[in-house]
Amino acid sequence: MTRITEKVRNGVDTEQMFGTLDAITADPSLGAFQFRVSNEWIAGAHNRSSMQRFYGAGQEDTSRSEPFTIDAGEPAVLLGNDTGANPAEALLHALAACLTTTLVYVAAARGVRLTAVESTLEGDMDVRGCLGLSDDYRNGFEQIRVSFRVRGDAPEEKLREVVERAQLRSAVFDMVRNGVAVTVDVESA
Amino acid sequence: MTRITEKVRNGVDTEQMFGTLDAITADPSLGAFQFRVSNEWIAGAHNRSSMQRFYGAGQEDTSRSEPFTIDAGEPAVLLGNDTGANPAEALLHALAACLTTTLVYVAAARGVRLTAVESTLEGDMDVRGCLGLSDDYRNGFEQIRVSFRVRGDAPEEKLREVVERAQLRSAVFDMVRNGVAVTVDVESA
Repeated sequence: MTRITEKVRNGVDTEQMFGTLDAITADPSLGAFQFRVSNEWIAGAHNRSSMQRFYGAGQEDTSRSEPFTIDAGEPAVLLGNDTGANPAEALLHALAACLTTTLVYVAAARGVRLTAVESTLEGDMDVRGCLGLSDDYRNGFEQIRVSFRVRGDAPEEKLREVVERAQLRSAVFDMVRNGVAVTVDVESA
Repeated sequence: MTRITEKVRNGVDTEQMFGTLDAITADPSLGAFQFRVSNEWIAGAHNRSSMQRFYGAGQEDTSRSEPFTIDAGEPAVLLGNDTGANPAEALLHALAACLTTTLVYVAAARGVRLTAVESTLEGDMDVRGCLGLSDDYRNGFEQIRVSFRVRGDAPEEKLREVVERAQLRSAVFDMVRNGVAVTVDVESA
C-alpha cells in the first residue's frame, strides 16, 4: 500500500517520470517534440482548433484516436456571438494550465503531496491598440497577474518553492514572458 | 437584400463594428478591458480553466450565463492521461484563433468577402529545457510556424494584405511574439 502511494504522487507516476528523464538523458534525440494545431474559420469570431498528432520521443505520436477541439469566439460587446472563450482568455488558460502541470510534476518529483491547486489570472488590455484606434497601446495585455492558492502536506516554504520552480520550467510561462519567433505564410491562390 | 448582405460581412455586423469604433473614439475609457481565467487542478496533468466574467466597455460584463471551460492534459509520453490538449497546444490555439478573428474582422471592415480561412501551426520544442535536463534549451517553443490558406472574393493581393494587417493588430500574436510582464503571487497558508 505504501509503495503504491509513493509510486503515484499527485496523480503522476513517479517511476515513469524518472524513467522518462533517464531515457532522454541516455538518448537526447528523444527530447525533440513538435506540437501542431489546425484551425478552421466558421463565421465571424467563431473558429475551431483541432489537436491530434504530434512528434515526440523519437516518433510520430498516433495515440489519440480523436482530435481535441477548442472553439473560439468573442462576446457581443466585441462583435461576436460568444461561441467560445476568446483568444486572449485562451492564452490565459494555456498559461494557467502549464504553470499548474509544471508545479504538480515538480511537487511529485520532490516528494511533495498536493491536496489543492487553484489559480486566477487577470490580463489588462486597452482595445484601442488591437482595434487600430491608437498606437499608444499595444495589441496584447499590458500585464498578466497570476494568483495561486496551493495546499499540500508540506511546510509553506516547500509549497512556495514548487511554485517558484514551476516558473523556472514552465514552457508557456517562458513563451508568454519572453516571446517566441513566429513566421506566417499565406497561400491565397 | 443587398443592404443586408453588406451590413453583415463574413458573419460580422459591420454597422455594429463601426459604431463600436466610434463609441470608443468618443469615450476612450470604453477601451479598457480585463479578461480573467480561473483554473483548478484535478489530478496529474489534468486541470480545467473557466472563463465567464470580464470587464469591458465601461462595465462588468455579465452576459455569459455559464462559464466556458477548457480541460488541459498531457499525452502518455509526457506522463498524463490525455485529458485535453496540452498547454503548448492551447497556446497555439490561442494564436491561431486570434490571428483568424483579427483577419476576419479586418476583411469585414475593408469590404473583403471571405469564403474560407484555414491555418496550421507548428511549434518545435526540445523538452530537455522544461524537464530541467539541460540549460542549453529554452522551456518553450524555439519557433512557431503559421501557414494560412485564405479564399475570398478579392484579388490575391488583397487577401494577403488582410493577413498582413492581422499580424499588425492581433492581441495574441503581439503577446506571443513580444512577451508580456507576468507577476505570480502564492497563497499557501
